[in-house]
Amino acid sequence: MKRKIKLGVFGFGCVGQGLYSVLHQTKGINAEIKKICIKHPDKARPIDASFFTTSRDEILNDPEIDVVVELIDEVDAAFEIVSSALRKRKAVVSANKKMIAENFPALLKLQQEFQTPFLYEASCCASIPVIRNLEEYYDNDLLTSVEGILNGSTNYILTHIFENNKAFDEALKDAQRLGYAESDPSLDVRALDPKYKLLIILVHAFGIILNPGDIFNYGIQNLKDADIRYAREKNARIKLIARCCKNGNKVYAYCMPRFVPVSDTLNKVTYEYNGLLLEGAFAEHQFFMGKGAGGNATGSAVLSDISALTYDYRYEYKKLNQNLNHTYTREIELEVYVSYNGAIQPAAADFESISVRHESPGFNYLVGRISLLKLMKAKWMDDPSVNLVLTENNI
Amino acid sequence: MKRKIKLGVFGFGCVGQGLYSVLHQTKGINAEIKKICIKHPDKARPIDASFFTTSRDEILNDPEIDVVVELIDEVDAAFEIVSSALRKRKAVVSANKKMIAENFPALLKLQQEFQTPFLYEASCCASIPVIRNLEEYYDNDLLTSVEGILNGSTNYILTHIFENNKAFDEALKDAQRLGYAESDPSLDVRALDPKYKLLIILVHAFGIILNPGDIFNYGIQNLKDADIRYAREKNARIKLIARCCKNGNKVYAYCMPRFVPVSDTLNKVTYEYNGLLLEGAFAEHQFFMGKGAGGNATGSAVLSDISALTYDYRYEYKKLNQNLNHTYTREIELEVYVSYNGAIQPAAADFESISVRHESPGFNYLVGRISLLKLMKAKWMDDPSVNLVLTENNI
Repeated sequence: MKRKIKLGVFGFGCVGQGLYSVLHQTKGINAEIKKICIKHPDKARPIDASFFTTSRDEILNDPEIDVVVELIDEVDAAFEIVSSALRKRKAVVSANKKMIAENFPALLKLQQEFQTPFLYEASCCASIPVIRNLEEYYDNDLLTSVEGILNGSTNYILTHIFENNKAFDEALKDAQRLGYAESDPSLDVRALDPKYKLLIILVHAFGIILNPGDIFNYGIQNLKDADIRYAREKNARIKLIARCCKNGNKVYAYCMPRFVPVSDTLNKVTYEYNGLLLEGAFAEHQFFMGKGAGGNATGSAVLSDISALTYDYRYEYKKLNQNLNHTYTREIELEVYVSYNGAIQPAAADFESISVRHESPGFNYLVGRISLLKLMKAKWMDDPSVNLVLTENNI
Repeated sequence: MKRKIKLGVFGFGCVGQGLYSVLHQTKGINAEIKKICIKHPDKARPIDASFFTTSRDEILNDPEIDVVVELIDEVDAAFEIVSSALRKRKAVVSANKKMIAENFPALLKLQQEFQTPFLYEASCCASIPVIRNLEEYYDNDLLTSVEGILNGSTNYILTHIFENNKAFDEALKDAQRLGYAESDPSLDVRALDPKYKLLIILVHAFGIILNPGDIFNYGIQNLKDADIRYAREKNARIKLIARCCKNGNKVYAYCMPRFVPVSDTLNKVTYEYNGLLLEGAFAEHQFFMGKGAGGNATGSAVLSDISALTYDYRYEYKKLNQNLNHTYTREIELEVYVSYNGAIQPAAADFESISVRHESPGFNYLVGRISLLKLMKAKWMDDPSVNLVLTENNI
């Protein structure tokens, strides 16, 4: 039943090298790398030159290669490679959340049309088996909420700030040096990366396909010392949270920072770790935590997809096919803390209610209830002098 | 590909009723209960009488019934039912860890001989998908350790004692009243229940099949107020830990209480929750937490197995088939705290070394290093005036 798989790999950065090292240390999997397509042939490589090519067709047209592993950064090129491979009925494994989130309907159609599996466990939370579990294990659990810390880079930065009193810039540089940050750090810091992951989770948790523009994301780019002090005073930390949640048949979703009490389970998720809380009608609260970034953690998730392909595994997209009648809404009210210190003030009219107003030299904030839709449209939110943090449980 | 499944259920206690309620609230699964075999026909039941029978053959001989769900307490009767069902090529789902742990080789043989799947996700950690993940996801990760809190009942008792200052007996009664304890509480309290789970985990994590007698188990039956005070003084809690761990190609395993620092991740696992820490070469540290007891949590795991059967899923026992050459050892040295207050004293000669000796009126203890093999043979351990707690990190 198990068959030997020959891999064609695109990209040999942090994850590609992680995959190579993982694949060559485990004996359980019947797969070998035949060719690796790279962009820069002159770069020094840690493995034999015969593995490499700069021609994508050398992989895509090789009938011996069963599985294409796409691990490059560029979204358009990645989509083109994945599409071509699926059209040639080569199974594909990818870790490229941005490419997947931006092209989901097309990728779904290709899988159906060419009856070829496309797996992407490594695209969400690296080492945590989230997609496989949502597909297979939480298939029948009436899920109500999936939330968590989905971005290792910002979590590393926030942990460094709160636990080690590091400055933001210094913490970011550390994260980049350790390979936890995307090559474009704004994907992390502006909460785009966790939003892409959330879009993928929404499909497998609730059967909802959205575009990146549909979901509110707010990162930690405007975080000020005063906000950090405020969190500490409340015995809380700030975590960047991605959440999707079902209320009746309405589903809402967002990515934004939240005050998390020190004693909260999510505060156990430190540095480059990711953590995921699932709530369901039967299994109730479930918590998964594991490394969310780094070559080996991501490489191990890629390898688990390759291993699943040796058994002809494919996603069934059960939630999509169950016609669950879920609809996406942004008409949900959230309690937020907004700090501001410049000329730009949050527009009081946008809020349903404001419970706290604080003004002092150089540090003003309010706490109030506002709809997700208003938050997405508010112009004052874009100003770097403003900062937004979700607040719950009276923090 | 998906087919409609008809279920024959044995037992209608806490888990059986949980399954019924879970099955009737979810629409994703193509399965229905046809018959439920019970022992006491006169007992009042919450569902229609036509579901029930007292004849096992009415289920086992019904060609319409595809899947037998075994949820009874008695081990011998359960094994007999499961064996008969597999012989008739009916797939079986069971939550009966004791029956599985005590009969593993025979059950494996039946699965192979009759080419019929036998799934038992609910037997370990109820709602946490541990077996499926060890089989499918950690197939290629070089696992080095699986440890955790695998018994909801004792964890409930210990949490109640430490967080709410409850007495042991009162905490046990609460656990029983809430349905978290086995009908024979000594299975929980003497750490037999988590040992059965550990035996199952050992197969799927390391490919090692053992008998219950091979593994050291020590429960919380001898826990004294003085031990609890000692833990508090060290800013720790006591948790009942099951662990299997690989060192080179040697694997060791035990179930025993351990001092766990208050800040430790395992201390997030409170009341009836279970928690599992996995360590692997690539994914590194992974942590899973979820409800480890209760009808719905266990029922949801049973349902996920039923759902998997609609796709003809079966365990591949990959670690067993990989010929991993792991051998089981008890020649491992552990650091333990032993308290004693009576005439019985721990035999100093059994210890490799003793680092602490404390004697005071009514409360004596020592801390020392001892091999697992010596612990298993020590007669002084059996005395109720003695108590043993694993100690690490200088607690």
